[in-house]
Amino acid sequence: MPKAEIIAIGSELLTPEKIDTNSLWFTEKLNELGVELRAKTIAGDEIEVIKDELKQALQRSDIIILTGGLGPTEDDVTRQAVAEAIQKPLIFDENLANTIREKFMKLNRPMPEANKRQAFVIEGSTVLTNEHGTAPGIFIEYNNKKIIVLPGPPRENQPMFESSVLPILRKDSGNRVIKKRVIRVSGMGESAVDEAIAPIYSGYQNLKTSILFNRSEIEIHLTVNANSIESAQKTLEEVTKKICEKLGIAVFSTNGETMEEVVGRLLKEKNKTLAVAESCTGGLISMRLTEIPGASSYFLQGVVAYANEAKVKMLDVAEELINRHGAVSAEVAEAMAKGVRERAGSDYGISVTGIAGPTGASPQKPIGLVFIGYADDKQAKSLKLILPGDRHLIRWRASQAALDYLRRQILKSHTL
Amino acid sequence: MPKAEIIAIGSELLTPEKIDTNSLWFTEKLNELGVELRAKTIAGDEIEVIKDELKQALQRSDIIILTGGLGPTEDDVTRQAVAEAIQKPLIFDENLANTIREKFMKLNRPMPEANKRQAFVIEGSTVLTNEHGTAPGIFIEYNNKKIIVLPGPPRENQPMFESSVLPILRKDSGNRVIKKRVIRVSGMGESAVDEAIAPIYSGYQNLKTSILFNRSEIEIHLTVNANSIESAQKTLEEVTKKICEKLGIAVFSTNGETMEEVVGRLLKEKNKTLAVAESCTGGLISMRLTEIPGASSYFLQGVVAYANEAKVKMLDVAEELINRHGAVSAEVAEAMAKGVRERAGSDYGISVTGIAGPTGASPQKPIGLVFIGYADDKQAKSLKLILPGDRHLIRWRASQAALDYLRRQILKSHTL
Repeated sequence: MPKAEIIAIGSELLTPEKIDTNSLWFTEKLNELGVELRAKTIAGDEIEVIKDELKQALQRSDIIILTGGLGPTEDDVTRQAVAEAIQKPLIFDENLANTIREKFMKLNRPMPEANKRQAFVIEGSTVLTNEHGTAPGIFIEYNNKKIIVLPGPPRENQPMFESSVLPILRKDSGNRVIKKRVIRVSGMGESAVDEAIAPIYSGYQNLKTSILFNRSEIEIHLTVNANSIESAQKTLEEVTKKICEKLGIAVFSTNGETMEEVVGRLLKEKNKTLAVAESCTGGLISMRLTEIPGASSYFLQGVVAYANEAKVKMLDVAEELINRHGAVSAEVAEAMAKGVRERAGSDYGISVTGIAGPTGASPQKPIGLVFIGYADDKQAKSLKLILPGDRHLIRWRASQAALDYLRRQILKSHTL
Repeated sequence: MPKAEIIAIGSELLTPEKIDTNSLWFTEKLNELGVELRAKTIAGDEIEVIKDELKQALQRSDIIILTGGLGPTEDDVTRQAVAEAIQKPLIFDENLANTIREKFMKLNRPMPEANKRQAFVIEGSTVLTNEHGTAPGIFIEYNNKKIIVLPGPPRENQPMFESSVLPILRKDSGNRVIKKRVIRVSGMGESAVDEAIAPIYSGYQNLKTSILFNRSEIEIHLTVNANSIESAQKTLEEVTKKICEKLGIAVFSTNGETMEEVVGRLLKEKNKTLAVAESCTGGLISMRLTEIPGASSYFLQGVVAYANEAKVKMLDVAEELINRHGAVSAEVAEAMAKGVRERAGSDYGISVTGIAGPTGASPQKPIGLVFIGYADDKQAKSLKLILPGDRHLIRWRASQAALDYLRRQILKSHTL
């Protein structure tokens, strides 16, 4: 499989405020041709750094895209750095200078002397026309590697890539196609997932699998490289099916859906409604559910009962229950879920009560102790968790656990 | 001036979906020490690429930070790559293994065999403790260069950098000091802010000012470069004071505080309590307020009254009011704020009702129409806004506007 690298040039990209987003668009285009990225680099406007990075990239990759540093000013040194890296001279191109001059004439302006710099071309290279700016691009082959140099602004470099570079790369790519899929898993650790599915993914030569932990869930990233879209899709379907069979209900999403989208879809499909009572998550579950357009068809109401009095007055939790077991207890979690469900007249009620920290803990009730409550028309039950992390993370993980608990209950009640 | 490089590791960072944002935070911290970035690299999980990049960085820069690839699975190869690049052996550290084992024990889980990989240390290196995860970091000096290896998640690597790495780097940084401050402004546009404060900041030679729009507020970033902390602080204080005098109540934060932190602090200082009623923001305001430790001393309860019925039953909004003016109206916003305040027995009540889209709009009530309600013991009033953006952004901006409305009411009532 051919490998590519992207080198973004510009000292402003090395400040805390700016990020290179150009490369995402190029990555997608390259991936579609079956080309994967080996590395990305961001270099300041320093000739030596750009030269070194390009030389290193030429040693290990087949296609190198450089963006930025083609402007008319002194600090734009990309053209020179590329020429020096591959030891070719820069030659002044009178025709190109005229083309640039004409662009200025169209704007009724004389060409500044500095823009002459943009009319120097690397010997043996092809000039890539820039319809939206003055800086021309460069395409050159060197030791069977392809070097593509484009200006920094996306409105200039994207049309140039599509019209001039893609046709060249397409000729080489044959029929190779790369397709991706993400499978999301809850309630299992990274290594447990890997242990369970390694025998599946290791059976495929053209499949790359990476397992990532993402705050409150495990993501399985599948990347397949095939000689047709159909064959890529087929492999992805097959592997996804095997992983789902192996991991069962722990898989909550195979098509990019988030947990709140999955829960929302299930409620909609089953024509059920939900009410939510939150203590330590403070509104996060309601917020996540209502982030989805159309949530009003299944989400009836949410209560953030932070104070004990609010739990009694708004959720009908018996004061005596709080006194006996404490606000952070299985009993109170269940009473909250029952209370909010009854008040709202919904099919399901879920609740969270816990200690998100940094204060409020005791030896019996440590930071991270969380009870998830669930109620439907037949029962109320709860789940005890000890969640790692700081306040923010504990709240997020508790919200995820509550949504996941509901998801599992809905799926179980409908498979009986 | 010392130069640094950042190498972010992880094949997922080479996909079209993910971007390395970790490096922005590190860049800011390094800049504060007078250290500038020479380059940034993103490498996949390939030993050879990581090795080559590190070797190249060691040739031209003084500090190299590597992040990611320290996990327990086979594809986590950073530890090995660094060891090979500087030709040092990896040694199994029994004590470190025990520390990792204890982290799992606290979660009532056995340590998976794979996590033993995280207990290998590079000979001659210092182990950097990770309070928020299992992967320890590495610090090692090599040819007078500093190599710092940290895990990928910001929640792990940022505290590690602050507690273990900063003290080491500070020792070397000499006297040049770069200090920053962010002033946050609500209810004004970018150009209006710039027009008002340009005469102030342009009077300072060693000050860099940038004005950024950040979702729902304007940020004024001040960067001062001085030869002592005292001198830098003095300039920042002086400029901040002048800007605050000029912009008045529109400035809500000069020390990094978020809007919810400012509102929380004001409530605490004045010994007042709050209850929140939300419709289109769906719990976001409650969630933001309760994200702050200690919110229980002023935040009594929140209600997410998504359905009209919930507004009537949980907030005592008269059904007739909804029928006459619609749920998205000044009258209903005020009734919601009054209702939640009375039910909770709090000093203040605030509310939001609006149309976040993408559906639910009409010619009279477009997407982005939002009413903010406010109630105290003397009055109820409201504010009408038309907010631009998609669903997510409208919800965020509405939550910010509601908190800001409350902030202004509290400040006004206490300056009378």
